[in-house]
Amino acid sequence: MSKKKKKIIAVIGGEQPSSEEAKLAEEVGRELARRDAILVCGGLGGVMEAACRGASAEGGITIGILPGNNPKAANPYVQIPIVTGIGYARNIIVVKSAQAVIAIDGSYGTLSEIAHALQNNIPVIGLNTWVLSNKGQQDDSIIRADNPTEAVDKALDLTKVSPPNSSK
Amino acid sequence: MSKKKKKIIAVIGGEQPSSEEAKLAEEVGRELARRDAILVCGGLGGVMEAACRGASAEGGITIGILPGNNPKAANPYVQIPIVTGIGYARNIIVVKSAQAVIAIDGSYGTLSEIAHALQNNIPVIGLNTWVLSNKGQQDDSIIRADNPTEAVDKALDLTKVSPPNSSK
Amino acid sequence: MSKKKKKIIAVIGGEQPSSEEAKLAEEVGRELARRDAILVCGGLGGVMEAACRGASAEGGITIGILPGNNPKAANPYVQIPIVTGIGYARNIIVVKSAQAVIAIDGSYGTLSEIAHALQNNIPVIGLNTWVLSNKGQQDDSIIRADNPTEAVDKALDLTKVSPPNSSK
Amino acid sequence: MSKKKKKIIAVIGGEQPSSEEAKLAEEVGRELARRDAILVCGGLGGVMEAACRGASAEGGITIGILPGNNPKAANPYVQIPIVTGIGYARNIIVVKSAQAVIAIDGSYGTLSEIAHALQNNIPVIGLNTWVLSNKGQQDDSIIRADNPTEAVDKALDLTKVSPPNSSK
Repeated sequence: MSKKKKKIIAVIGGEQPSSEEAKLAEEVGRELARRDAILVCGGLGGVMEAACRGASAEGGITIGILPGNNPKAANPYVQIPIVTGIGYARNIIVVKSAQAVIAIDGSYGTLSEIAHALQNNIPVIGLNTWVLSNKGQQDDSIIRADNPTEAVDKALDLTKVSPPNSSK
Repeated sequence: MSKKKKKIIAVIGGEQPSSEEAKLAEEVGRELARRDAILVCGGLGGVMEAACRGASAEGGITIGILPGNNPKAANPYVQIPIVTGIGYARNIIVVKSAQAVIAIDGSYGTLSEIAHALQNNIPVIGLNTWVLSNKGQQDDSIIRADNPTEAVDKALDLTKVSPPNSSK
Repeated sequence: MSKKKKKIIAVIGGEQPSSEEAKLAEEVGRELARRDAILVCGGLGGVMEAACRGASAEGGITIGILPGNNPKAANPYVQIPIVTGIGYARNIIVVKSAQAVIAIDGSYGTLSEIAHALQNNIPVIGLNTWVLSNKGQQDDSIIRADNPTEAVDKALDLTKVSPPNSSK
Repeated sequence: MSKKKKKIIAVIGGEQPSSEEAKLAEEVGRELARRDAILVCGGLGGVMEAACRGASAEGGITIGILPGNNPKAANPYVQIPIVTGIGYARNIIVVKSAQAVIAIDGSYGTLSEIAHALQNNIPVIGLNTWVLSNKGQQDDSIIRADNPTEAVDKALDLTKVSPPNSSK
């Protein structure tokens, strides 16, 4: 068989987004599904749930990499719950399983995912999220997007340029 | 949305099965797909590849929980590679993500998966695999099956009786 | 500096040992400390606690690789708690951190540790624990010992013959 | 027994520090040992090695939580190598095992550790390291120190105020 694999894009972000941020996440999910990409996320609420709801509404596939032991902790729009039981060490799996990451809002958990992605050369597109500087110098590794469509455009474009994790 | 979730069944086993064992694995994969279950496995060769090949041939969904960092290490019949990077600590995720486990052949890695499943009260169905005894007494926790259809029957039946991981 | 490293030996086993098994574990801990080996374990109760108690009584060093997030979950004889938060995926870390493993009693968690150790070519010495057979043939990879001193003798001898994890 | 446990402090930072940063790390290690704290780190080179060298020179205990499978990958000043085999998912274990974290220099791996620590309410003291802002607002969660002694002072003071991970 070996049919063409779909692209997998991670959506990461906080569990308590503003209603505007939740709308951004839902629209990112919708747009990913329209472009036939699989959405992977941490499987819980907030940005993760909004993105899965959007993707599901458009018939997309949604995967939730859960920290705990109970598949029922997944938000109702996760179609495929992956039950890790490894707590927030699962954050690194969320980003490694994707060819690009879209970060929306988010607190320290999201920051750890951004850091793990950048460490692994997986592109990160940011919508209203963290800004980094190291030793007094701004770090521009997070690619900024102004809206959900631009975020998805950039994420999918970047997976074209560099084959997924090719060097590892 | 919240459409009915498909059942997820793990197929575990060795990377160097006999040709007969590979046939068993392929038929287990076919049968799981015919029954509309999602197949989850460790994503690599041998029993894992044979099972994914069978499931794919029948149009089923296949997930590979990979130990390493490269999604291209997945066998060609894995549609959704989950890239953990946590080595064989990923074994516990393979079984926790399933509502039942079918073990075919296998060496110590498979034995660790059987043990993790039993520790988590996830039913294990065995086709030509390990036999356990503890302090002189045989342990009959692995449910024996004589052929692939019986293995899949038992796996799907057991997910009916006890709701997936209900107590955790 | 680079002073000679002490040997690290894992003691694994159940949380509900019989009083006789707890005595075996305590004596194993004592003997490891007398031989100047570091004891590593899963950090919780039962066999783990008895072994740490024995080692501490003889002035030995004890390390507990904890599954949860709270260092206070360690038994009181753990001097160095390692807080993993990765649940029972930590089992593989317990055995990988040792040059040999002594298994006493134990249920499925212990079985998963035995399997992970054997998969990684780390010698396992068994005192009243699991017996394995694979496809009708007994697997004699677990080295049997009749008493704590013999178990510790064998564990330390095996770390001499094969340098720790040399092949990896 | 149950003798008073020593404090455990993590030192995190890059593998390619400047010579000045390596001196800071070594002095942090020395100072931790003088105050009878155990040093935990990722076990590899750069900041980690410098800190372990300093601690060892003063007779302190050093623990290295290694990403790979080979204990020999530890720097020569690690007395107790913990072999995780879970790759950079081990970062979260480094910080969770400590009551406070001192970050020196560092790239994205260090940033992931800072984020995991802050997510877990473990205080982070920074010496010449990352600066964070979230959505246009600077995040002052990283406590700044101007020199190694001040960093160690602050780390040990913070472990006094809040008992280790008490809320988890």
